[in-house]
Amino acid sequence: MRLAILAHEQFPDRAKTAVGVLRYADDDVVAVLDRERAGERVREHVPDVQDAPIVASMDDVPDCNALLIGIAPIGGGFDESWRLDVRAAIERGCDVIAGLHYFLGEDEEFAALADDHGVSLRDVRRPPDDLTVAEGTAGEVDARVVLTVGTDCSSGKMTSSFELRDAARERGLDAAVVPTGQTGIMVAGWGIAIDRAIADFAAGATERIVQQAGDHDVAFVEGQGALVHPAYSGVTTSILHGSQPDSLVLCHNAGNETFGGYDDFALPSPAEYVGLYESMAVPISPATVDAGMLNTADLDPDEAEAAVADYADEIDAPATDPVRYDADDVLDALL
Amino acid sequence: MRLAILAHEQFPDRAKTAVGVLRYADDDVVAVLDRERAGERVREHVPDVQDAPIVASMDDVPDCNALLIGIAPIGGGFDESWRLDVRAAIERGCDVIAGLHYFLGEDEEFAALADDHGVSLRDVRRPPDDLTVAEGTAGEVDARVVLTVGTDCSSGKMTSSFELRDAARERGLDAAVVPTGQTGIMVAGWGIAIDRAIADFAAGATERIVQQAGDHDVAFVEGQGALVHPAYSGVTTSILHGSQPDSLVLCHNAGNETFGGYDDFALPSPAEYVGLYESMAVPISPATVDAGMLNTADLDPDEAEAAVADYADEIDAPATDPVRYDADDVLDALL
Repeated sequence: MRLAILAHEQFPDRAKTAVGVLRYADDDVVAVLDRERAGERVREHVPDVQDAPIVASMDDVPDCNALLIGIAPIGGGFDESWRLDVRAAIERGCDVIAGLHYFLGEDEEFAALADDHGVSLRDVRRPPDDLTVAEGTAGEVDARVVLTVGTDCSSGKMTSSFELRDAARERGLDAAVVPTGQTGIMVAGWGIAIDRAIADFAAGATERIVQQAGDHDVAFVEGQGALVHPAYSGVTTSILHGSQPDSLVLCHNAGNETFGGYDDFALPSPAEYVGLYESMAVPISPATVDAGMLNTADLDPDEAEAAVADYADEIDAPATDPVRYDADDVLDALL
Repeated sequence: MRLAILAHEQFPDRAKTAVGVLRYADDDVVAVLDRERAGERVREHVPDVQDAPIVASMDDVPDCNALLIGIAPIGGGFDESWRLDVRAAIERGCDVIAGLHYFLGEDEEFAALADDHGVSLRDVRRPPDDLTVAEGTAGEVDARVVLTVGTDCSSGKMTSSFELRDAARERGLDAAVVPTGQTGIMVAGWGIAIDRAIADFAAGATERIVQQAGDHDVAFVEGQGALVHPAYSGVTTSILHGSQPDSLVLCHNAGNETFGGYDDFALPSPAEYVGLYESMAVPISPATVDAGMLNTADLDPDEAEAAVADYADEIDAPATDPVRYDADDVLDALL
């Protein structure tokens, strides 16, 4: 598939979905739309992903099959400043792929226009209609279940999941990511956006997708949010108990001290988080924090090495930065 | 309002909603429908609530304004064996009040019939359409916020909330219950069924209703589920962080050792739960477990007294059974 990715005014630092797709999807990205960076290129900002031109609007996008919404504001709404580009994409015959809480398929203009032009509006955050409560049976799968958990949102859980999968595959293991959020679903082509499920069914939805991956050797479940996040902790907890993991990987952004977007709330330390995650997990499945992932993108090489070593000490488990170094560094501790 | 309450084959022990409405609502209950107990009376089974005849079907119900579905199976589905009674109620001109995940208003037969007969189908579990993520601001309300939490589902959180409200009112305080589940909403006439909210918005929904009660002296927030429940822990956690309580009340059924419906999972002890709830609460609001509520309905008087004393020792806080004794016994510890 030839993709254009919309990331207006947010590429790359606040465009987690765009960067995730650039890094992990098999699709060709023909352009990134960011009206504030038009004329630049992706690799000027993110060196280790596929390159593409950055353009101001759909008018400047080369031939493509789909427009993917690569940003997700807090609350998951649709920003009306994107409407012209979405309209233009549909009129060019492109599918539109979005992971918003606002479903494009329920937007009257887009639905009618897509119908006229014979294209699909793919709202990957829409959960299945037949979800129900968890039975408490995810732990029965054959796969080893490894859950990435975080100290905050956007702390590297999806990235770590895919990097761990690739490291396991390099060792000849049959490994899968179990995607629980819009970006992971866009990259892997399946999964359920747990944060969009009815709260009562969020653990049940997690259980279902873990069971769907249950025949692999190892399933890396993408975690969401953080266990004591002021807004999203319920999603985190549902995934922790619904997936019944064997092992946890704690993901953290080096230096972060407050919750992103919630500056009044101090982040518990990584060591405190180890205690919280383990004490919450253990009544349902005997999982421990067996490895750590530290995002050191903002540090220079010497600082990064020291930060990873300190982090490993603090959480009392092997740690790495899976992008700067290699997820394989910690894989032994998880298998 | 003159209510009939449907509780087929489950009254009273598995009819939590029916018993809650009988005990706390201002409405007159003219009959309970339970085809297995037809001919008996409510007070033969639950001595301390308003009395009413138990009947086999709507055919035997005296004049009334509404039929209330007083049972809620796991998963919240609609049992087709109830269809005849719901149909008969609508045809008699009764509103139908339900708290199921299955919305009666979306049932084609019921919707058409209700339209024909000019009655309302009130699905109290349907959340508002405009929910969004929590801002982390519930802690700013003037009211003292007291959250009832449990060791399992059906452990007395709603009952304790209403009993505490009444005890506080008897002391001249302006006290309210903040209802988070279908029964509490039916009794109090407002609230949001948090378990039905989109998982991402569950804490935000809680925050909204706490703020709506923020001008009272004290707001007793009805908790849901349990913090390490295999299926519902996400709802519990969303309420814990969304409500930012000042104080917690731990509710427990005397003698319970496994999760109801999940017999493979041992219940952590009440003492362990105190540690779990407090360690999970504290990063967001400085709440401690300041009182305990023990359901001793299955014990004789001597056993009950000893069990409450043991429970108070175990959780290191004053405790009572708010139905057998009085919620006022522990109110000082919460104000």
